[in-house]
Order: sequence, then structure tokens, then C-alpha cells
Amino acid sequence: MKKRKKIAVILSGCGVYDGAEIHESVLTMLAIEQQRASYVCFAPDIKQYHVVNHLTGDAMDESRNVLIESARIARGNIRPLSDFDVADFDALMFPGGFGAAKNLSSFAFDGSNCSVNDDVVRVLKAMVALGKPVGALCISPVILSKIFGAIAVTIGSDEKTATAIEAMGSKHVETTHGEVVVDEVHKFVTTPCYMLEATISQIMLGASNVVREVLKLA
Amino acid sequence: MKKRKKIAVILSGCGVYDGAEIHESVLTMLAIEQQRASYVCFAPDIKQYHVVNHLTGDAMDESRNVLIESARIARGNIRPLSDFDVADFDALMFPGGFGAAKNLSSFAFDGSNCSVNDDVVRVLKAMVALGKPVGALCISPVILSKIFGAIAVTIGSDEKTATAIEAMGSKHVETTHGEVVVDEVHKFVTTPCYMLEATISQIMLGASNVVREVLKLA
Repeated sequence: MKKRKKIAVILSGCGVYDGAEIHESVLTMLAIEQQRASYVCFAPDIKQYHVVNHLTGDAMDESRNVLIESARIARGNIRPLSDFDVADFDALMFPGGFGAAKNLSSFAFDGSNCSVNDDVVRVLKAMVALGKPVGALCISPVILSKIFGAIAVTIGSDEKTATAIEAMGSKHVETTHGEVVVDEVHKFVTTPCYMLEATISQIMLGASNVVREVLKLA
Repeated sequence: MKKRKKIAVILSGCGVYDGAEIHESVLTMLAIEQQRASYVCFAPDIKQYHVVNHLTGDAMDESRNVLIESARIARGNIRPLSDFDVADFDALMFPGGFGAAKNLSSFAFDGSNCSVNDDVVRVLKAMVALGKPVGALCISPVILSKIFGAIAVTIGSDEKTATAIEAMGSKHVETTHGEVVVDEVHKFVTTPCYMLEATISQIMLGASNVVREVLKLA
């Protein structure tokens, strides 16, 4: 029997406005399993940038931890990103949500001048060095652009974000629901998901298509 | 063109140990859309019973609101359960998670002597009075048993929970992954999901099967 390929899923909290987008995270996990691979969840053990009331959109006077909140999506089965060992995995996936732009990086505030979490940088450079593929949904491709510069990615069609991606030295490819962009050199696979006005079925399509391309490259 | 059937999804927080189980919630929403119906999310505007650190399982010294946390799963598109009007919906769905047994009812603490949130009682009685179907995953069938007594439901095979269900006057039917129990009199459709040790693909199967039966009855 062929050994199942193992994919690390990097979460960034729990909720679209201050953490990992929940639908994208869950449907990435489902797509991985449906395509006969397995996943392990990771998140950095750091404070969230802030906490947003998802009913009103207002910031709340609270403090939450990215790893602890991500554990909600992972049903407790999650490890600190500092424990990630590149030898253990065939591929890596980043769901989207503002957590990618507020907790894993500062893109939401600093645009193309953003910084990226040290563990995220380490993990991504290790994957690329070994020629292992990385999938990224929604806004999270900006992290790849910041670290690697001259790559091809998509976040859909949002002009401001596409301009920032080009400012970081990358080529932005316009796409719509479920379409993926593959950077064959770096083995990066990206798709817009909720960077477009989308239904949950369209998110499932995007997650499935990214996972399929990632597994081909793994 | 046939009008899409409209299903209300009742959430109970955001996270298996103190709220709605996230996979069951998201996959219920996906199943509804994939089967060409539409959904609207609701949750009661009440304090959570408590907040659990999903990494350690310990209670945290925090207070959170069921509606505000449920809004994370619903990406902000959610309404207070007090606004629910039975005339607007063809069916109702309850994902599971401890939120059903801690926030929507007190089953986690009081077993067969539990109480149920007033709005949940009102909404369920209104659905049954009009012969509209209700789907319930995981632990949430206990709410149906408490309110309606002589019904048939499943929560899988957990003996303690099955005994409590029988103590409330219901018939518990043992089932495994993806199997559903239909109470034709009350139009209740139930399946075990994470009441069994399950994979995320098995949760998708359970959610799809319940939604299919619910739509047949609607």
C-alpha cells in the first residue's frame, strides 16, 4: 500500500477577521483527507495582534493566543510551529484569513513593507530548500511574495493587494473561483478563495484544487 | 426554476469543548449548499457556560458570548436566535459540540434532568407544530429528546448518553459513521458524527446524509 503523503496545515487563530479563516481551514483539512493524504496542524505560540468581535467588526478589549485559538479548529490536535520539522512533511498549506496578514505577518498594516513571523520564514525556507511544495489560499500568498520575491502567485483580482504583491517583486496572476496558479520553480500553489466574494462550495473547490496540485508536486 | 429550500443552522459558540463543533458546523453549511439549498446561521445571545483552552482542556478565566463567538464560524452573517421566525425556513439544523450540552442546554451537567434554552424550545416546538424537519448531529439530539420525549434518535453508541436519552423517554438507535436515524412522526433526522471517533471525511458523510434526509422531508 502506498504511504499517505503528510501535509502540515499552518493556522493563524480562529476567525476570518483576527485569525485563520475557518471555512478555508476546515475545507483544506477535508480536501487533504479526501485526496488520501493526512494532515497535522501547527500554529505559532504568540499573542494575536488583536481580537475582533465578528458580529460587529469592532476590536474587543481582550487578548488571545494564536496557538490556543487555532486549537479550536484543530480540536486540540495541534503543535507549536516552533516544533515543525521539515523532514516530517511532504507539503505545507496556509489557509487564509486576516490572521495570515495580522499574526503570521504584518501585511494588513504594512503592505509590501511587512515583516513575517520568524518561524514562518524558517519553515518556508526549509520547504523550498528541499523542493517540497507549499499551498496558500486567500491572502496568505503575500507571505510567499515577501520572503521569496520573484515568484508567481494569485490572490484573485483585488487591485490594492495585487499592486503590493508586484511591489514585493512577484508576478500577480488574476484568477477567479477555484483557479490555481502554480509556480513550478518554487512549487507554490495559490488560489483566491474568500479574497473573492465566494460561496462555501467555491471555497471547497479552491481548497480541493490547491491540494490536488500540491500533491502532484509532492 | 425551483426555489431553493432555506435551512436555519443553530450554532452554540465556536469550538468543540465550549461551543459548536467547528467541522460539523462548516460541513453542515457546505452540505446544504452542495445540495442546492441555502442556510442562515442563528445563535442565542447569551453568555457561554465557560471558556475552555482547546490546547490543554482547562477552563480559562474569561467570559465569552455565544452569538459573538458563533459569528466567527458564520463570518459575521448570523442573527440572534430570538429573531428566528419559523415562517421563513423549511428546515432547521443543529451541529454538535459541547455548546449544545453546555449553552443550548445543561445536558453536560444535568444529564436527563437538563434544562433547555427558552428560544431553542420555542423554535423547535414551532418547527414540529408546522411539520418542518429538524436535523441534529453528534450530541445535539439530546435536546430533541428532552423536549419531545417519545422520539427515536441516535448519538452513535456511547452508552452513558444512550441511557440518558432512554431516561428522557426516547428510543436510542445504535449507529455508526454516516448512518442516520429518521423519526418520521416528528421529522427528526440524527447522526453521530464526532460522538464516534471519526475522521473529517466521516463528518462530511454524516452531515451530507442528514441534510439529504432533511431536504426529502421538507
